[in-house]
Amino acid sequence: MSLEALRREIGAISDLLCAASVLVWDSRTFMPPGGVEARGRQIATLTDAARERLLGAPTRRALDAAEAAVAGSPRDAPEAREVAAVREALAFHDRIPGDLIRRKAELRSRANAAWAAARARDDFALFAPTLAATIELQRAYADAIGYADHPYDALIALYEPGGTIAGMRRLFDALRPTLREVGEVAEARPAPSADFLARPYPAEDQRRFVERVAGAFGFDLARGRIDFTLHPFEVSFTRHDVRLTMRRAETFDPPALFGAFHEIGHGLYEQNVDEAHTRTALATDLKGLYAVGGTSFGAHESQSRLWENHVGRSRPFWEAHYGALRDAFAPSLDDVTLDRFHAAILRARRGPIRTDADEPSYDLHVMLRVEIEADLIGGRLAVRDVPEAWRAAMTRDLGVTPRGDADGCLQDIHWSSGMFGSFSTYTIGNVMAAQLFEAASAEAGVAAGLGQADYRPLGDWLRERVWRHGRALGRDEILARATGRGLDPAPYLRHLRRRYAGA
Amino acid sequence: MSLEALRREIGAISDLLCAASVLVWDSRTFMPPGGVEARGRQIATLTDAARERLLGAPTRRALDAAEAAVAGSPRDAPEAREVAAVREALAFHDRIPGDLIRRKAELRSRANAAWAAARARDDFALFAPTLAATIELQRAYADAIGYADHPYDALIALYEPGGTIAGMRRLFDALRPTLREVGEVAEARPAPSADFLARPYPAEDQRRFVERVAGAFGFDLARGRIDFTLHPFEVSFTRHDVRLTMRRAETFDPPALFGAFHEIGHGLYEQNVDEAHTRTALATDLKGLYAVGGTSFGAHESQSRLWENHVGRSRPFWEAHYGALRDAFAPSLDDVTLDRFHAAILRARRGPIRTDADEPSYDLHVMLRVEIEADLIGGRLAVRDVPEAWRAAMTRDLGVTPRGDADGCLQDIHWSSGMFGSFSTYTIGNVMAAQLFEAASAEAGVAAGLGQADYRPLGDWLRERVWRHGRALGRDEILARATGRGLDPAPYLRHLRRRYAGA
Repeated sequence: MSLEALRREIGAISDLLCAASVLVWDSRTFMPPGGVEARGRQIATLTDAARERLLGAPTRRALDAAEAAVAGSPRDAPEAREVAAVREALAFHDRIPGDLIRRKAELRSRANAAWAAARARDDFALFAPTLAATIELQRAYADAIGYADHPYDALIALYEPGGTIAGMRRLFDALRPTLREVGEVAEARPAPSADFLARPYPAEDQRRFVERVAGAFGFDLARGRIDFTLHPFEVSFTRHDVRLTMRRAETFDPPALFGAFHEIGHGLYEQNVDEAHTRTALATDLKGLYAVGGTSFGAHESQSRLWENHVGRSRPFWEAHYGALRDAFAPSLDDVTLDRFHAAILRARRGPIRTDADEPSYDLHVMLRVEIEADLIGGRLAVRDVPEAWRAAMTRDLGVTPRGDADGCLQDIHWSSGMFGSFSTYTIGNVMAAQLFEAASAEAGVAAGLGQADYRPLGDWLRERVWRHGRALGRDEILARATGRGLDPAPYLRHLRRRYAGA
Repeated sequence: MSLEALRREIGAISDLLCAASVLVWDSRTFMPPGGVEARGRQIATLTDAARERLLGAPTRRALDAAEAAVAGSPRDAPEAREVAAVREALAFHDRIPGDLIRRKAELRSRANAAWAAARARDDFALFAPTLAATIELQRAYADAIGYADHPYDALIALYEPGGTIAGMRRLFDALRPTLREVGEVAEARPAPSADFLARPYPAEDQRRFVERVAGAFGFDLARGRIDFTLHPFEVSFTRHDVRLTMRRAETFDPPALFGAFHEIGHGLYEQNVDEAHTRTALATDLKGLYAVGGTSFGAHESQSRLWENHVGRSRPFWEAHYGALRDAFAPSLDDVTLDRFHAAILRARRGPIRTDADEPSYDLHVMLRVEIEADLIGGRLAVRDVPEAWRAAMTRDLGVTPRGDADGCLQDIHWSSGMFGSFSTYTIGNVMAAQLFEAASAEAGVAAGLGQADYRPLGDWLRERVWRHGRALGRDEILARATGRGLDPAPYLRHLRRRYAGA
């Protein structure tokens, strides 16, 4: 008895899901517009084939044999975790009717088109019927998955195992007062000048600068690459091929450059999952049918936010790299001191758009969405009331009122993509990033490295405690081993106060 | 009873094969080096999944039902052809042991590496053991497929249905004397000056010029794109997404530009297969497990050679486009008249390398390979004697003696890729291209269009007679309908005499 037969099946499933990811990557970077429809079918066929293979008799037989083989192992041994992950995924998919999967997939392509059209015309009413249908299906999906307290819990857990709306509310309550206070202090100061960010910064030079930073952070460009796209993302086809993307901007649009740093963080996680986990359940999300080595969306986001915000926006980083930036984009920054530049990229100002949000206000955007989603799924909010609920919450929590629906409740693609439940992971990522970075920085070698723009000690620390484990450890196990406690908002609040409120 | 269930299965198989082609395209254009191994496994898994789905019970049941449904149709009706193609492919794959497929795939990856290493060290002996193993497997493959006269026939027919070595020899005999004679006449003339081709021609500008030509030829860039690669190819993921590639050259290397015209021809064929054939057996090679709409390799090559040589190298083409070329690459051609430029790109000179060969000598390269392959598969030539056989044939047929193995019998990737049998289709393509172009040019509208750089009449003629049929008509059916006869070398010989021997 061994795991060999199971690994053969899961390996093939991993191949199919990696292939699907290649097709997604291509569709968002290089695919000509005519390819959209055929590509959608191809990706659906690959995902279906992966699901069918997981539910097939050979996988079930191999899983039985593998369970017998690891019966004597400790429950937290990687092999035991690997086998358990397959059993859990199989039980999960056995609960979801195939018909529901098909209806969700069909609705998603229609919904994306309806959303895009509604957004272009700034009219939520055009999207409302499709959103209502989406919510119906998401409720049915939650019912099929099962939950203890709230149907939305089943959806959060798709992205963050164990996540619940009650838990998120506790976390949000712990964050909210300080986020507001920090934002107010930061905005009360005179705004730093930032007009020089609108000068010419050729996109191709930005990409080259990002490649340089990626190399400095330890991202291996022989096992990855960086291309332009409209909505940046990271995707991997095993740890040996990890693709990053960035916005194509011709000015210094901070979300373009820092968005690229963000994706580097995701990419570092994927490139450093143990080779032994490649093509196994410990580097594949078998429930979500997605080729990913990170253990949860929140844990993944912690790595992107750590490199984007804690390293990439830090003073020591720019002390080391500002000269190179200035040279790369001369003469645009010739008359700009490091102080002025750094103040400009840290300027805080609340706005209606989440993807442009500064650090102190980002989670306020998240909370608003999570509450609206929970109320929609729980039946406490009617679809037609979403624009007004959004406007009221935005005005109350951020002091900003969107002009219409396009910069309000239609700004995100998540709902039309059927991704209810995923927003929470952005805040979990922010909190976990600060917690890990604070713990890492407490080590003398890491702190010394950061002061000298040598990111290897930090990378080694994260590889050992986070990256290499893939999905063999859960988010809270990683946190407990690395920091001695579960998810803790205190380091994040300390970071925000220090950076934005001069505390 | 209907074809619906069969089309569902074949549609999914087409999706898997299109996905495999996306992965191949990426591996040859953008993939970082670290991805090689994982990518090989992913492509193998997709091809296996397609084969398993073809051989599975649902496809067999659907095929039985579809045969009943088309029982009353004429045998050459597209639906009847569609169903028959699935039956034929199923019977084909039922004959091939799964173990043989696996061994071939395993050997191929080893063989490619052995070939590359042997070629780099200019030493055939390093490749000989792998080639011997390849030939063993190719013989076993031919035996499993079945053949009447010669095992090599089974392999030729993989690429050109109905092809045999006896038939190829008849064709070669009809071509050889004129090819030699034309080559000698052309080379006896004073060589035109061509030094200006070595001036700067930036690769990115070449790509833009090729895009312009692609548009003029009728290639739809909203359903395709053109990227750089080392060994150019065309690949399609349905007619809605057709990818062309070209060499990245910084001088006017004629094979780079004309190679791109060549791929445009392949791309036109794929983009113009009837929409109704998309995702069916009439736009998928179910035997070769390859997503392709063209009916045979030879027919496909006829379209690439037609646009490359008959249109792209013609005097009227350059009368219309030379100005644009000159502007695009100024000042490199500022002092070069159209006459001098056109003479330079038509200069004939025999050399040892097939991919650099001029029109009159190209087929002599092909013949040499076909005879050596037939003798290797037939057991009349030992592997160790290949270098000497190659040198002797090259000296005899082309008057050129390769310096070593790298520019001799190790120059092509075909053997290490297990593609025994495919070389014949290059010559079939040349002959068919001339035959179709002569017939098309006999129509007043086509001829007038060509004189005015308006390629729509030619495109319409080819779409109607060749492209739209996909695999619903065989090569000889296309030729018979379009030209009133089967494959006929006379137009090709007339073309070569006219262009290169002033006849």
